[in-house]
Amino acid sequence: MRDKKTDKQGANTQIVSRRHLLKGAGIVGAASLISACGGSSDCDNTAVGAPAILSKKRSLKMVTTWPKNFPGLGTTAQDLSKRIETLSNGQIKIKVYAGGELVGPLGAFDAVSQGKADIYHGAEYYWQGKSKAYNFFAAVPFGMTAAEMNAWIRFDGGQELWDKLSAGFKIKPLMCGNSGVQMGGWYRNDINSLDDFKGLRIRMPGLGGDVMAKLGATPVTKPGSELYQALAQGNIDATEWIGPWNDLAFGFHNIVKNYYYPGIHEPGSTLSLGLNLDVWNDFSSWEKEVFQTATAAQNDLTYAEFNARNARALGTLINEHGVKLKRFSDEILVRMAELSAEVMEEAASDDAITREVYESFKASRASSMRWNEIAEMAFTSARSKMKDL
Amino acid sequence: MRDKKTDKQGANTQIVSRRHLLKGAGIVGAASLISACGGSSDCDNTAVGAPAILSKKRSLKMVTTWPKNFPGLGTTAQDLSKRIETLSNGQIKIKVYAGGELVGPLGAFDAVSQGKADIYHGAEYYWQGKSKAYNFFAAVPFGMTAAEMNAWIRFDGGQELWDKLSAGFKIKPLMCGNSGVQMGGWYRNDINSLDDFKGLRIRMPGLGGDVMAKLGATPVTKPGSELYQALAQGNIDATEWIGPWNDLAFGFHNIVKNYYYPGIHEPGSTLSLGLNLDVWNDFSSWEKEVFQTATAAQNDLTYAEFNARNARALGTLINEHGVKLKRFSDEILVRMAELSAEVMEEAASDDAITREVYESFKASRASSMRWNEIAEMAFTSARSKMKDL
Repeated sequence: MRDKKTDKQGANTQIVSRRHLLKGAGIVGAASLISACGGSSDCDNTAVGAPAILSKKRSLKMVTTWPKNFPGLGTTAQDLSKRIETLSNGQIKIKVYAGGELVGPLGAFDAVSQGKADIYHGAEYYWQGKSKAYNFFAAVPFGMTAAEMNAWIRFDGGQELWDKLSAGFKIKPLMCGNSGVQMGGWYRNDINSLDDFKGLRIRMPGLGGDVMAKLGATPVTKPGSELYQALAQGNIDATEWIGPWNDLAFGFHNIVKNYYYPGIHEPGSTLSLGLNLDVWNDFSSWEKEVFQTATAAQNDLTYAEFNARNARALGTLINEHGVKLKRFSDEILVRMAELSAEVMEEAASDDAITREVYESFKASRASSMRWNEIAEMAFTSARSKMKDL
Repeated sequence: MRDKKTDKQGANTQIVSRRHLLKGAGIVGAASLISACGGSSDCDNTAVGAPAILSKKRSLKMVTTWPKNFPGLGTTAQDLSKRIETLSNGQIKIKVYAGGELVGPLGAFDAVSQGKADIYHGAEYYWQGKSKAYNFFAAVPFGMTAAEMNAWIRFDGGQELWDKLSAGFKIKPLMCGNSGVQMGGWYRNDINSLDDFKGLRIRMPGLGGDVMAKLGATPVTKPGSELYQALAQGNIDATEWIGPWNDLAFGFHNIVKNYYYPGIHEPGSTLSLGLNLDVWNDFSSWEKEVFQTATAAQNDLTYAEFNARNARALGTLINEHGVKLKRFSDEILVRMAELSAEVMEEAASDDAITREVYESFKASRASSMRWNEIAEMAFTSARSKMKDL
């Protein structure tokens, strides 16, 4: 059932006009389908209830910013790849490369922009060197929750601005997963006042790190793989990572017990897919629908998995490892909010598109906040006061 | 490109073994595909980048509990139908019937259970006459938010129990949309104390209505279409409906201005798809994947749309119509929570499966609450105190 002629054309022909391909390969596909299935009974796998392949197959390369099988992040990329292959009945195959396999984790954007790979899966703040605007499509301090990001991107102008920003780099972006609110981090010592941040060596990348710097701390950028040792050896005093599920796996609770919340630096970390724009534009409307539907489904599933597993891991950290949950004081949170607004404003002054994105983001956040305050926040706050549930 | 022979077989053959069909119709499909496309250039619509149809097409009937084009609810059913048709390149067609077109809105469950229709889209609490357990798969007072429902159903045992419950009625259930936290409702008079509920005629169906009855109110069940007039004519003193988006469209703000929150009766109203189990079991793994992916995508999109549009409509209600937002007092919320727990406990005593579902629901809610309290709730509460965002 394979259309070998088009298979052998390889990656470089993926962006050839499909109308052109139809005249040759498409017909060959139909013919080979007949010869494989003519009256024989061993066609079940492709013929039973699944669409058969007429036009050529796609073999796409996806580079990611994650280690292989990394829970919640690497697995989202892998699950998406399988889902698209199944949905397309094998017509679209995506080979997933962990960070470092084809290009380094932070080389994923350039690889797709330049057509060396077809797709990346990552988080947009990794590309803030291209434009600070990218931060707003992943997570910013005191930004939006997962539900609010979904509302902004899908129904309040976010996707249009994101498309505009990424088109400049020949990339088509789509949301694909959310890890929810991150934890404030693991701190060796108590944080009781603003003074306790002075000189603190804390691992926190991106704009959250800029807020820390304004508090007098020394933000350190280190890959996840080095964090445990750095904290154990006293090279850093504190670190944020993700949330209970991933933090438990790294074992930070074996070194320190103070686990601070809320994590104001990433309130709804959005994961994303970026497709080379030539590849995207070459997609048929059916292929676009497959990608849009599969990424929206993954957006739903990944966030649900993070919530379920974070909730369970939090129980384990508290009940089995004696971890102490501590809330940043109001004084600290207020100061963090003020400094976050400064950091955003500085970022927005960087280029015109960042300003435009920030204004749209702020307006949508204000609208969502007003709704959230009388809806989910009001409900969950009331529920938390109840003893008899 | 259509496979007319199988098209004409009609709905009754949909559950015929697909292996059997392959030997006849499948081959005809392949042959007709060749004859339609052999060298001609007018095959673009189906041949360009989309899978062609080898096996027979499905024509499925979906009955819904919603009026046609009803914002957020009817449109979810319609959007899903279009998405599945596009994803399957026309192989699966779903005709959507509004409530009353084929069967009455509340007849949807029986129609699918008995095979008169293939699929329903609705909210599971409508079937509480079959088993009280159904309430927990839509919304219950002081229950779970949309994100928490997704975590329970997908990753904490909910789907397995739901499958077990619905298999008894020959139905396969899937989540498909969420309208989020509902508003507390429109009240003619202020609600300052528990005494103000005594004798109050309020429209609130289901278990929320049972809580109202325990408060001394008289819950009234009326279809949405009759609510405006009932409130205007003084036949009811208060009504809940959905949220700002849908409530604005109904115009309740023209009659009363008191808009209470939080709506504790439906904190994350989950919409669902139910498929006739014979139809589901006859699906190929590809068809199952199409339905699972499309419903998960719709789950994400519908909730995002409700949030975005509720947020916008809330602004309109306040700024253009002088609506007054009022919060139920802590005294009232505490009593509502106690009575909600009583109502749940009574429901759980109804049959064994409801008890089993309630225990699973409670355990998952407890786990999610602990996480929510230090994650989204802690973050949004902190953010709401800030002036400079």
